Amino acid sequence: MATDYVHGYSTDESTRLADQAATLTDLLHGDVRYAPGSRVLEAGCGVGAQSVILAANSPDASFTSVDVSARSLAQARRRAREAGTANVAFQQADIFDLPFPDEHFDHVFVCFVLEHLPNPVEALAALRRVLRPGGSVTVIEGDHGSTYFHPDSAYARGAVQCLVDLQRRAGGDSLIGRQLYPLLVRAGYQDVGVSPRMVYVDGSRPDLVEGFTRRTFTAMVEGVGEQAVGQGLVDEASWAAGIRDLYRTAEDDGTFCYTFFKAAATR
Amino acid sequence: MATDYVHGYSTDESTRLADQAATLTDLLHGDVRYAPGSRVLEAGCGVGAQSVILAANSPDASFTSVDVSARSLAQARRRAREAGTANVAFQQADIFDLPFPDEHFDHVFVCFVLEHLPNPVEALAALRRVLRPGGSVTVIEGDHGSTYFHPDSAYARGAVQCLVDLQRRAGGDSLIGRQLYPLLVRAGYQDVGVSPRMVYVDGSRPDLVEGFTRRTFTAMVEGVGEQAVGQGLVDEASWAAGIRDLYRTAEDDGTFCYTFFKAAATR
Repeated sequence: MATDYVHGYSTDESTRLADQAATLTDLLHGDVRYAPGSRVLEAGCGVGAQSVILAANSPDASFTSVDVSARSLAQARRRAREAGTANVAFQQADIFDLPFPDEHFDHVFVCFVLEHLPNPVEALAALRRVLRPGGSVTVIEGDHGSTYFHPDSAYARGAVQCLVDLQRRAGGDSLIGRQLYPLLVRAGYQDVGVSPRMVYVDGSRPDLVEGFTRRTFTAMVEGVGEQAVGQGLVDEASWAAGIRDLYRTAEDDGTFCYTFFKAAATR
Repeated sequence: MATDYVHGYSTDESTRLADQAATLTDLLHGDVRYAPGSRVLEAGCGVGAQSVILAANSPDASFTSVDVSARSLAQARRRAREAGTANVAFQQADIFDLPFPDEHFDHVFVCFVLEHLPNPVEALAALRRVLRPGGSVTVIEGDHGSTYFHPDSAYARGAVQCLVDLQRRAGGDSLIGRQLYPLLVRAGYQDVGVSPRMVYVDGSRPDLVEGFTRRTFTAMVEGVGEQAVGQGLVDEASWAAGIRDLYRTAEDDGTFCYTFFKAAATR
């Protein structure tokens, strides 16, 4: 998976992922608190952007955060150390071959992971194995098809579509947020509930203009420009116009909409 | 405007609009209450679907509901009579030539109207004239470009696009929800705040599957089929496939997303 990970593994990229995590913390994580003493598996922790938030929100729960990439884990460990996080154990592991006994965890947490997998139902089923009866799973994913903005622009929509196409070529599916309900049902979970978390940005919210429209979303799209042009998905001029028009939506009279989906279910 | 109104003026259509109003009442109107004695102008009341809700939620406020269509007003009056509504006076009037003195109203309410107008800023400015200093305007509009669903389908997206195109040909703009902030600012209002109201539907919400996905949204799209095919926007087979695929999203493993935008501002 490492080489195909659409967002890459560079330092700039992990700065962007950290900015994103900070801006969206409340929206995505505000309502997750794990009881003292509970054992929580974070599957696909990446560079640890969510790990430090989860751990801080539930200081008396005990987290095991796994990722398939040793390089990401090294960054995650550094981030946790810098944040003074004491209740997370990082471990290299593959979601499809988890080194834990059946029913080992009280809760499982998965954030921005399924979108990169060709077989999300199998991943959810593999996670279900290590969850105790009655335990809960929480899944957070974006959905790039939920993106729209003003002024509307065919170039900007085309640039976003390049990201969707690249993720599909890499074996993932960035239209996954809208699919969480059926995916969790198919994986055998009960009491599946999905709660969309829409990010709406206009000129009255300069923190979101900067933190989301510019530095999170548009930066993310901009980051795949070389791949998109290199793989012939778009010509260079159209790509530049798309990025220009995405930044245009961050002007005073622009607006920007994107929706994350958060799902909870029980084993 | 009458002949170009994209939803038409048939009885079936007004039943659909009433169904829609009932399903969405809480989402759209739950947080609007006008103080006793206040004078409220509802601009573009159509068949009165919102009027009876507004009036019931604020029984001691006094509403003047205007529309340009005498035929719609006749239905609105009948609806209000059947609902036992006593605090609404219906009156035929053009938003751009309102028969009221300056600063006559405490509040103005506009719902599903701007999307049909070629000049929404001018409409908002005309409404501002009859609003007292410090009075408020509330605007609710949909945004057809906010529609996405699972399973995704190019045919279904194409059918929705036909609705967008038809509305544009009729002089409107169905991508208006995302534009409420800049429109209100340009019309001279202060303290503009926009709150998106997303409708998310999955198999765990059968009332919304029926009330929104099937009977509101897909029925609305289905209703413009003759126009879409007749005007050459789509061929008959693709249209049928689009409608089929929209209904497909109402199956147990389907999901459906649409967002309304509600804005409030002061004069």
